[in-house]
Parts: sequence; C-alpha cells; structure tokens
Amino acid sequence: MTTQTAQGAAADERIDEASRWWSTSIIDIEPGKIGIRGYPIQDLIGRISFAQMIWLMLRGTLPDEAQARLFEAALVSAVDHGPHAPSIAISRMAISCGVDLNGAVGSAVNVLGDIHGGAGQQCMTLYRDCRARTGQGTGDPIQQALDAYRAEHGKIVPGFGHRFHPRDPRATRLLALVDEAVATGVVTGEFAAIGRRIEVVLEREKGRHIPMNIDGATAVIYSELGFAPELGRGIFLLSRSVGILAHAWEQMQEGRRIKGPMPPSIPYAYTGPKTGTVK
Amino acid sequence: MTTQTAQGAAADERIDEASRWWSTSIIDIEPGKIGIRGYPIQDLIGRISFAQMIWLMLRGTLPDEAQARLFEAALVSAVDHGPHAPSIAISRMAISCGVDLNGAVGSAVNVLGDIHGGAGQQCMTLYRDCRARTGQGTGDPIQQALDAYRAEHGKIVPGFGHRFHPRDPRATRLLALVDEAVATGVVTGEFAAIGRRIEVVLEREKGRHIPMNIDGATAVIYSELGFAPELGRGIFLLSRSVGILAHAWEQMQEGRRIKGPMPPSIPYAYTGPKTGTVK
Amino acid sequence: MTTQTAQGAAADERIDEASRWWSTSIIDIEPGKIGIRGYPIQDLIGRISFAQMIWLMLRGTLPDEAQARLFEAALVSAVDHGPHAPSIAISRMAISCGVDLNGAVGSAVNVLGDIHGGAGQQCMTLYRDCRARTGQGTGDPIQQALDAYRAEHGKIVPGFGHRFHPRDPRATRLLALVDEAVATGVVTGEFAAIGRRIEVVLEREKGRHIPMNIDGATAVIYSELGFAPELGRGIFLLSRSVGILAHAWEQMQEGRRIKGPMPPSIPYAYTGPKTGTVK
Amino acid sequence: MTTQTAQGAAADERIDEASRWWSTSIIDIEPGKIGIRGYPIQDLIGRISFAQMIWLMLRGTLPDEAQARLFEAALVSAVDHGPHAPSIAISRMAISCGVDLNGAVGSAVNVLGDIHGGAGQQCMTLYRDCRARTGQGTGDPIQQALDAYRAEHGKIVPGFGHRFHPRDPRATRLLALVDEAVATGVVTGEFAAIGRRIEVVLEREKGRHIPMNIDGATAVIYSELGFAPELGRGIFLLSRSVGILAHAWEQMQEGRRIKGPMPPSIPYAYTGPKTGTVK
Repeated sequence: MTTQTAQGAAADERIDEASRWWSTSIIDIEPGKIGIRGYPIQDLIGRISFAQMIWLMLRGTLPDEAQARLFEAALVSAVDHGPHAPSIAISRMAISCGVDLNGAVGSAVNVLGDIHGGAGQQCMTLYRDCRARTGQGTGDPIQQALDAYRAEHGKIVPGFGHRFHPRDPRATRLLALVDEAVATGVVTGEFAAIGRRIEVVLEREKGRHIPMNIDGATAVIYSELGFAPELGRGIFLLSRSVGILAHAWEQMQEGRRIKGPMPPSIPYAYTGPKTGTVK
Repeated sequence: MTTQTAQGAAADERIDEASRWWSTSIIDIEPGKIGIRGYPIQDLIGRISFAQMIWLMLRGTLPDEAQARLFEAALVSAVDHGPHAPSIAISRMAISCGVDLNGAVGSAVNVLGDIHGGAGQQCMTLYRDCRARTGQGTGDPIQQALDAYRAEHGKIVPGFGHRFHPRDPRATRLLALVDEAVATGVVTGEFAAIGRRIEVVLEREKGRHIPMNIDGATAVIYSELGFAPELGRGIFLLSRSVGILAHAWEQMQEGRRIKGPMPPSIPYAYTGPKTGTVK
Repeated sequence: MTTQTAQGAAADERIDEASRWWSTSIIDIEPGKIGIRGYPIQDLIGRISFAQMIWLMLRGTLPDEAQARLFEAALVSAVDHGPHAPSIAISRMAISCGVDLNGAVGSAVNVLGDIHGGAGQQCMTLYRDCRARTGQGTGDPIQQALDAYRAEHGKIVPGFGHRFHPRDPRATRLLALVDEAVATGVVTGEFAAIGRRIEVVLEREKGRHIPMNIDGATAVIYSELGFAPELGRGIFLLSRSVGILAHAWEQMQEGRRIKGPMPPSIPYAYTGPKTGTVK
Repeated sequence: MTTQTAQGAAADERIDEASRWWSTSIIDIEPGKIGIRGYPIQDLIGRISFAQMIWLMLRGTLPDEAQARLFEAALVSAVDHGPHAPSIAISRMAISCGVDLNGAVGSAVNVLGDIHGGAGQQCMTLYRDCRARTGQGTGDPIQQALDAYRAEHGKIVPGFGHRFHPRDPRATRLLALVDEAVATGVVTGEFAAIGRRIEVVLEREKGRHIPMNIDGATAVIYSELGFAPELGRGIFLLSRSVGILAHAWEQMQEGRRIKGPMPPSIPYAYTGPKTGTVK
C-alpha cells in the first residue's frame, strides 16, 4: 500500500469514527425512508397510538393493547397541577417575557428536577429495593428499604402523602386500573403490593394513613410495565409538558407583559442591610 | 365603616388581585378534587387517550374518536428525525455533560424556534391566508398568498420540499389519512386542497414537483382540525419531545462524558488572527 | 491517480468540510496553547478586566481603558431588579425544584426575550434609525423614527419611562458617565443627543417628562461604543445573569422545596367550566 | 375587635406571608431608589468593576482591589474552550434553529452540569476535605481525602489532568498569580499548597506528573477567596456565558439554518433492527 492510500484509509477511519460518534439504535434514515426501531414510519402512522409510539421510542418494542392502555392512563393523569406548581407558573411567566412556546416549554420542563419532577423516579427505585430485599433475610424488607432510603435521602418518602390532597384522586383511580390489569393478567401486581405494604408501614409509624399520591401510583404502573426508574421522570416530563404547553398558550392569548410572581401591589420583603458606602 | 375595616377590605382586594393574577380556565383544584376543563380527573384517567387529553388541555373540549385518530397520527409522525437534527444532538450532548433528563429535554425543546420548529406554524398561517384570499378578487389566490409570504419572510416556503427526502414518507401517509377523514366526513378537506394547490403553483414556478413535507402535511391536519397556527408549533413540541427523551435515555445508558459535536480527531477550523499583543 | 487515492482525497475533503462546519474566528486551541482572538490566553489572564474580556470576545479587539470603564458601568447597572422580575423569580423557583445552579440560570436567562430582555436591543435599533434619518429630508427625524417604530411595533417606545421608577436612578448615573466620556473624547455623544431628543419629543406628545430608563441609557452607551443592536440584548444577558445567579444561590441556602409563585394560602382563581361528563 | 377587623388582620397576615415568600437580602427597591446589598445603585455604577459587582451580589460585601484582581483573573480564564465543548456547540446550533441570543445562552448554560461544569465545585469540595483532614490523625491527609473522594465518586479526580492539554496554560498563569497574591498577603496560600500536594500524590500514584488544570486552578483561587464550593460552578457559569454568547453572535452573523453536529455528508451509524411489522 502506498503512503497516499494509507492516508486515504486513515481519513476513512476518521469518518467512520465520526459516524459512530452519533450512532443510535432508534432511528434509521435514508432518502425517502424513515425507520423507527426497525418499523417503517408509514406503518406506524395511523396504526399505533401516541402512547404506543412513546413506548416504542423508549423501549424498542411495541406494547400490546392492554399494556398501552395502562401506560396511557398514567400519562393522562399527570399533565397539570395548576399555577401553584413552579413548572406551570414558569411557563406562563416566560410567555409574558416575549419568548415563543418552545422557550416557555424549555424553561419550564427544565425545572422538573429531583424535587419537582423526580419523586416518581425515586419511588421506583425504592420499590425496586423493596423487591430486592424481599425474601432475603429476617425482618420486614419494606421497613428495611424505607429505613435505608431515609438514611441516604432524608425523611421524605417519595410517592406517599400530599401536602394539599388528603387523598389524591388520581392515585385512587390509577390503582383501580392497576387492579383491573392484575385481574386480567396484564401485569403481575408485585409493585402494587409493595406500594400498599409501604402504606401499611407508614401508617404504623405515623399513626395515620398516608396514601400513595400520583407519584407513588404512576411509579407502580411504570414499574409493573417494566420501565427503568429514570424513565419514571422521563415519562412524567412528557406528561407535564402538556400542561406546560396549555398554560403557555392560555397566557399567550391573555397577552400580559412581564408577569412577575405576584402583582406589583404586593411588595416583597427586603431583609438585607439598609446602608453601604463605596470607599 | 371604620378605618380598620376599610383596611381589611383593601387587604382582601389585594388578595383577590393576587388570585386573579394567576387565574386560569384549565384546571380547578380543591383538596381531594382535580378538575380539568370541568372534567373530574378520575373520569378522564383510563377513559380517554393521551392524544385526547392533549386536545382537551389545549382546546377545552374533547375530540370525538375520529378527530382524535387523525390528530394522533400527526403526533406520531414527528417524534424524531435523527441525530443530524440539532434538537436531537443537543439532547444527547446535554446528557453527556451530567444534567438529568429534564435538563436535556429542556435544552433541546428550547431550540425548536422559528427555523427548526416553526415551519408547521408558518405553514398553517400561509394556508389560512390562502383561504382568506380565495374568492376575494381576481387572480390566483394561492399564488398571491405565496407571493405575499415570500415578500415578508424570504424565499423559503414552509412545509414544502425537503433537503434530504425527495418525497417525505410521513407526508404521503398523513395525507392519505386526511383523504380518508374527508371521505368519512371527519374534516372538510379545505386545507388539504389548499396544500395541493400550493404544490401545483410551486411546480409551475420551479418546473419540478416539490411535495408537501411533514410540516406541510401536519399543518393540513392541524388546520383541518381547527387548531390555531401557534399550536402547530406547540403540538410539534410535544411530539418531538418524545424523540428528544428517547435519545437522551439512549445516551444516558451509553455513558460518554462531555460529548462534543465531532470526535476530537476532527479538529475545527480556526479562521481568526494568529497573533495579538496586550499593551 | 488510482481509485484508492481518489477515495482518500474524497475522504480528506469530507473531513475538511467537517472542520469548516465548526470554524470560528474566536478561539484557537492546540495542545498546551489557547489563543483568544489571536492573544495567548496567558497574556490576557491577570492583565485585562473581565469587562475587557467580554468586549474582546464579542468584538475581536481590546477596548482602551476609558471605553472599558464606560462599558463596565453599563454592565454593573443591570444585574438585578428584584423578585418581581420574572427572570429573578424563575431562578429562585427553579432551585426549589431541585435543579442545580446551571439549570436555574438556564431557565431564567432563557426568558430574557423580546419583552423582558429585548428593550435595549430595540432601543438601539430605534437610535440607529434616528441617526439614519437625521439630515435626510424635511421634518423632525426623531419624530419620524418614533412614528415609524410605533407603526411597526405598537405604542410602547423601548427605553423610555418606567412603570415603577418615576426617574430611574441607574439611567441618571449612566448618562452622567456618558457626558463625562463625551467631555474627554471617549465617545462622540451622538446617541446621547438622540436619546435626549426622543425625551423632548415624548414630552411634547404626552405633556409630561418621560425620561430614559436603564434600557434607554445602556442603549446609549452600547451604541456610542459601537456595538450592534443584537448585542444590546446579549450584554444584558451577561449582566442580568449575575442577579439570576445571586438569587439562585440565596434560594439554595434558604432551602425551600417546590416554591410556587405565591404561598398556598393565596388560591388562584379558576375561571373555567364547573362540570363535564366523559361520554 | 370586631369580626370584620379580625378578617382584615387575617388578610393583612396573608399579604405579609406573600411578601415574606419572596424575601431577599440582595436588593431593595422603592420608586426612584435601588439598593444592592445596602449600596445605592448609583454609588456602584462607574465606581466598581463588573467583577466587584459579581462579588458583591454573591457575597454581600465588596472585595478590596487585590482580591478583585485575583477573582477577575479567574473569571477571564474560563470564558471559552472552543466548539468541541458541548456548551459552545449547543449555543451555535441553537442560533441556527431560529432562537434569539437569550435562547441560545439558556440552552447552552443549562448543560454546564456535574460533568461539563461541575469540576470546579467538586475540586473545591475536595480541597476543603483535604484541609479538614490535615492535622487530624495519622497518615497523609491528602491521600486519605483523595481515596475518600474516589470511593464516593469514581476514579476521576476533578481539577487535575486534561485530555487535550499536557499542561493547561491557563492553570500555569493562574497559579503564578496566586503565588503573587500569597507573597503580598492577599490570600494565605493554603489551598494552593493543597492543590500542589495533590499533584505530588497523583504523581506518586501514576508515575507521571498530572498538573492542575483550569478547574483545579480556579478552585484554588475561589477557595482562597472564601467562596462556597457551589459558587465554583456558579462563577464558572458567568465566565463561560461570555464564550457562549460570543459564539452565538458569530453564528448569528454567519446565518446558517438548522446546523446539525456534523455536515450531512457524514452519516451517523444506525445500530438497531432493520425490520419490524406492526400487527
């Protein structure tokens, strides 16, 4: 091989490296052809639901109808919780600042971090730990998992109790759907059982019933359906984006400029020093 | 009324003002109750699809089954167009920088601006202008609308032609579904007709067929279903978020740190000055 | 040349194309060497101010000391305007949701759009139009530029008047510094004169004095110093990022979880339908 | 007190609660007056540098000249590291998608997460742990701190070594400035000493010199100046925002539409299934 052809081979290798740099198993595109996880896009459009498409994109396989229905129920449940939720307020404020819908959704989805958007993921991890400890020794595996969780993350147990709703109407309905799915063999029910055993332990500890909230109930569903904990947050992002978008659009139609968190008639409290002299 | 009660009334008025500051017609929340556009949330969960929920949140009413199916087809069609799309690449790069899924989706959805995410909205506005001009005078209203659009926005007609696909397989399939929906009376077909008349005008101008792309086809569907042009972009945000999330998740599993746009073996070109002396 | 070497040349061309794809005149990097606009980074560190570095990065040249001082005054002036400003409120809310400082700054800077962050840019464009019209015909060029601006953008004149401050203390101080800079020949003063002539026209129109606000005053400075209007917004982003970061940090130390726009004791008003039945 | 005045008092209390909800010690605003940490804004503008203003906003006090100079050197050093850095590439891609400068900066700053933007913060935490262990028992406190860090976070030691620069020219210069500051009594030098002792331990472990990089050197400076570790990341955000903005602006002037990570001539590798049939 001459030096020139060696250089050519080296250049080809660098192009191959660049191609691999962006490799993906999700989508295959050629002129006139788009394949999603191996399925021609035109075979999916009009044949599968949006919820099924979400599943296919995240998992690589298509769910059956019954799985998709349960998944869809969870997606529907979490779209909005009103303007007191920072994600919703931020979306509306952003629009009033003159950004477009993409900017409002971008700023708002972005804040669905560990505290505002991560409870589902944390709860799924807790459920998994409960399952892993079950049958592995003496003592109550649920209590042990809770203790371990709190030792690492603090006293708040994700997915249980709600600062506003004594009983979360979304959780009640979702768990009824899980029970139906267990009865028809769609899912095993092992995570629903774990969730309810956590309720029992918490009631024993606190002396009052602390029911699963929407994060605990959707965590049951996503766990039953085999999703990774990280996708608990991921799917919530898709769900809440709907509310974020709807509020952005309502605000856009309303038309206010530079909407702060409170009307100007309510001043904020200043707690700092009153004087300072620049030397 | 005493001074004190006058003060009380004034304070109440300020609280009312604060309540109105965040008023919304989308969601009503009381302890234990959540209403979405007037529907108790538990009546929606498990009964309507995610696509129907999106419609309800954005429009305030529930679509019928046939409308929902057409809407859902459009949602399914636009989830992903691979890592050459900036939104997808940004999502993957963000994950490699150590942010969580919400951060990756936030940074990526945010860039779906006028050029990368706005073609559907622009196309819907163009379609509306075509309709408004139809029957309003002499000359071809489609040609006039196109000329007006280009006079204001430049030569690129949104929704037609594709730099990669000679014929966009998503558009072909979506338009077939629109035709079915017209045949069964779900939609009138007026915007599908407008889209096709634009194709005719463009072919006359360019001497070759320039078919609707996915933006043009989804613009037909969203227009037929009565959505405002701004929501053309809004719904696209929801659709593309699925691809953005799926790629973020794939990247998270892959685990690379600080993924730049190209492998380090390909240097970027520096085009600036070579020397400078700080005085 | 053989086929193989032709292939090699083609591969090299594609790598060159990739290198040009990311070309820049800002920074040159080799192992052990970093050049900024041609200056070795180690010659800049410790020798120029942060404000001078900003100028160098944006303009490609170093300002002299006097230019840098005036530029720095504008940068200092706009860092914060309190929690009633959406950018500041969003930053604090974001932290309470569990994102890190980068996420809070990302979500907050992002909303500095046309309305909340664009007034400086718009004002610079208006000043330029005033200058362009001066000496070009009959009538008052300032009045004509104002009329033209309002015909295109609506009645709000960017950079003049403030909904909170009768006289903006930042603008007063900045304009005094501009006058000093004019007196010492640092800048010509042509944009300060334009700004003041706009004040005269507005007072004639409204029957009361409507002074330049901070956007109008910084627009004078950035225009006098030769920045493009787009950078009026760009530099404001850098300045306001300081306040955004400071508030994020204060909130992080305070530690509240999921901070909405108002305390839960103040409900938001629901204005939608009260009932709905899913068929 | 009558019932009405009791109601009035309750309403006042709710307004006070709302005021406290947004309390801050950073900025005090009244009509015509703006105080920053107690300083009238007009006393700061034109008198302190932008770097001093950043310090004042973050710390609540003004640094002296020598502290400000050292702080400023660190701010200057980190503004840019070229388009291979995801933050810079994202900024340029965002502009090509049609968002404005605020959107580009928002999407790009947002990705300065634990991996791309957190090394300085992590290194400051490591330095603090080294200091806390010093004189607290037997054995090498530096070695122990490193071992503890790696046990918790993995093998990468933040702030040392660079995948591209054998010796980071920014770090060399910054450390020389620290030495000067130590010699003149501006800082104590304890963290510079710790950083150098880490270099010694790493060299002993690896058999080759692994010098402080920019994150390690700026971590020395911010630690010497008394900043909290979180602000190591925070200040880096401000510094890198300059590069992000400069690249956004260069891209905006260049004008390309929808700039992906690589030119279309380099395809990405598809690694998924080739076929799929929708049942």
